[in-house]
Amino acid sequence: MVSKKVGNQTVVFQNPPIVLSGYNVVGPKEGEGPLKGSFDKVLADTYDGEKSWEKTEAKMLETAMREVVNKANVPLVSVDYILAGDLLNQIISSSFAARQIGLPFIGLYGACSTMALSTALGAVLIDGGFASKVICSASSHHDTAERQFRLPTEQGNQRAMYAQWTVTGAGSLLLGNSGAGPKVTSATFGRVIDYGETDTNNMGAAMAPAIADTIINHFSDLNRQPDYYDLIATGDLGSIGLQLVLEILNKSGTKTGINFTDCGVMIFSPKQDTHAGGSGCGCSAVVLTGHILKKIISGELKKILLIGSGSLHSSTSSLQGESIPAIGHAVSIEA
Amino acid sequence: MVSKKVGNQTVVFQNPPIVLSGYNVVGPKEGEGPLKGSFDKVLADTYDGEKSWEKTEAKMLETAMREVVNKANVPLVSVDYILAGDLLNQIISSSFAARQIGLPFIGLYGACSTMALSTALGAVLIDGGFASKVICSASSHHDTAERQFRLPTEQGNQRAMYAQWTVTGAGSLLLGNSGAGPKVTSATFGRVIDYGETDTNNMGAAMAPAIADTIINHFSDLNRQPDYYDLIATGDLGSIGLQLVLEILNKSGTKTGINFTDCGVMIFSPKQDTHAGGSGCGCSAVVLTGHILKKIISGELKKILLIGSGSLHSSTSSLQGESIPAIGHAVSIEA
Repeated sequence: MVSKKVGNQTVVFQNPPIVLSGYNVVGPKEGEGPLKGSFDKVLADTYDGEKSWEKTEAKMLETAMREVVNKANVPLVSVDYILAGDLLNQIISSSFAARQIGLPFIGLYGACSTMALSTALGAVLIDGGFASKVICSASSHHDTAERQFRLPTEQGNQRAMYAQWTVTGAGSLLLGNSGAGPKVTSATFGRVIDYGETDTNNMGAAMAPAIADTIINHFSDLNRQPDYYDLIATGDLGSIGLQLVLEILNKSGTKTGINFTDCGVMIFSPKQDTHAGGSGCGCSAVVLTGHILKKIISGELKKILLIGSGSLHSSTSSLQGESIPAIGHAVSIEA
Repeated sequence: MVSKKVGNQTVVFQNPPIVLSGYNVVGPKEGEGPLKGSFDKVLADTYDGEKSWEKTEAKMLETAMREVVNKANVPLVSVDYILAGDLLNQIISSSFAARQIGLPFIGLYGACSTMALSTALGAVLIDGGFASKVICSASSHHDTAERQFRLPTEQGNQRAMYAQWTVTGAGSLLLGNSGAGPKVTSATFGRVIDYGETDTNNMGAAMAPAIADTIINHFSDLNRQPDYYDLIATGDLGSIGLQLVLEILNKSGTKTGINFTDCGVMIFSPKQDTHAGGSGCGCSAVVLTGHILKKIISGELKKILLIGSGSLHSSTSSLQGESIPAIGHAVSIEA
């Protein structure tokens, strides 16, 4: 058996899984942002005919799972597994969506790193010979996440200027062991890192050290330089977290350049009043499956690295005085 | 590439990962039950010196992760990944334990099926060549789970006679690609199934259809009969759920016998006033890594099948009128 592990945290796929399709659904605010042309479906309102935002989120995710398979023009029964997660307690969006689809389901929790984690583990299943097709998904909804982690949006509380705006969106990739498309070439699984940040409005600062750690390890494990990639997108640190990551990388000797960006920075315009940018599992899910994937397919981007960034606290852990642990998982996709 | 997928939901490992060690920690009540001789560490009280039960649960899990590695007499740095999950919102027990250990971390949510899920995915990583050693873990704590899902235990509410008692316990397996020990030979990933049960005190009834589905598919995929195994343990349906699963299996033509049991039935004596038996991620985690593993190592059991059973609801989904979806993941371990 040849080892596919390289360095401390990275795996390199020997038969790189192919991205057969991507599909995403976003809320109205996301559909008015700078990436509006890259989304497959934009909801007219945040309920989409459901009685609760939680039901809307599960429905968005179910749509993203079904339509990514339809887009690839393959039968649903040819898919082996669903890998998915979201921000809600007990990942109910993913579990309820998977109930509707009926395929074997692997539930993940990586907070906002979930899209990278589901893609990484989906690629492991395919490259390892355990599956021929898998759906990799993640979702979030602004109103479900805000009321669970902070305050109900109906209250209309003023948000901190350094806070991020949880994205309403769901995204899926369909990975396969044959066919045409970009390839998932490597994955770096992150460690849980906590520098003691306790302000749950300041997710960017809480996550930055973990994300920088994963980026540094990715390049060290693969003996690669950042200019290997056309685009290195963290997802979703927002403007403050991205700046902190770049500072850490520069101090550590990792050369950063214009190819570094963040999904949370890309998805909203400063005019949209989201403050530090977007966040939530759905943020990197819809930017990856929309904007980034379309640019890879068009040839504009050849090699990209997505580093999903997750903050692993809960309301209970914060109320009990714990600081915020974070994690970054990375996947590289190449044309 | 040879496919390791067999039938619809099952994977068969070609180089079956080896169980190098198992370790568990349980609370005082579990330590007084019928399996008391099989546990590695029994806490004197449910706090173990911590200021909250949540902190106690994370500490138990951290102990189970560290000690499973020590027991195998290998360095912690030789372990590639931790795969773990628990019942708490945002799986804080697992995330906080992984923060202390410092290894790359893959967070899972499968409710009480988590021990089977972490073992199955850990085996996938090893058999696929992505890792040489992984820690597979799960935990629960009676008082953290009860206050999150039902009522704070300090209230002293009367429990329904058909309710189960969430186990206080954490368990870990260390899987490796070389060495001596029992082997993880196959895994069946479950589908999310929901027959409409809405009573969150009746977890056994909510989970039974999903567990029966996974068992039926495991035997169908592998063209195997239940008498292939010396022990088939669901984990953790309790006495009512186990009875329902046996009824479904008998009606479907699957021959059940004395080799069928349930971790939730095994862990408590009827004298311990737990009503329908044990539940929680920690239940199957400590029964597998304790009682069952010890009997495999002693030669008393040669082939076992564990079917972890998870109920995928949240307090929010139940309050919004949703029924309870459930899932079963199975792993076979052979001497």
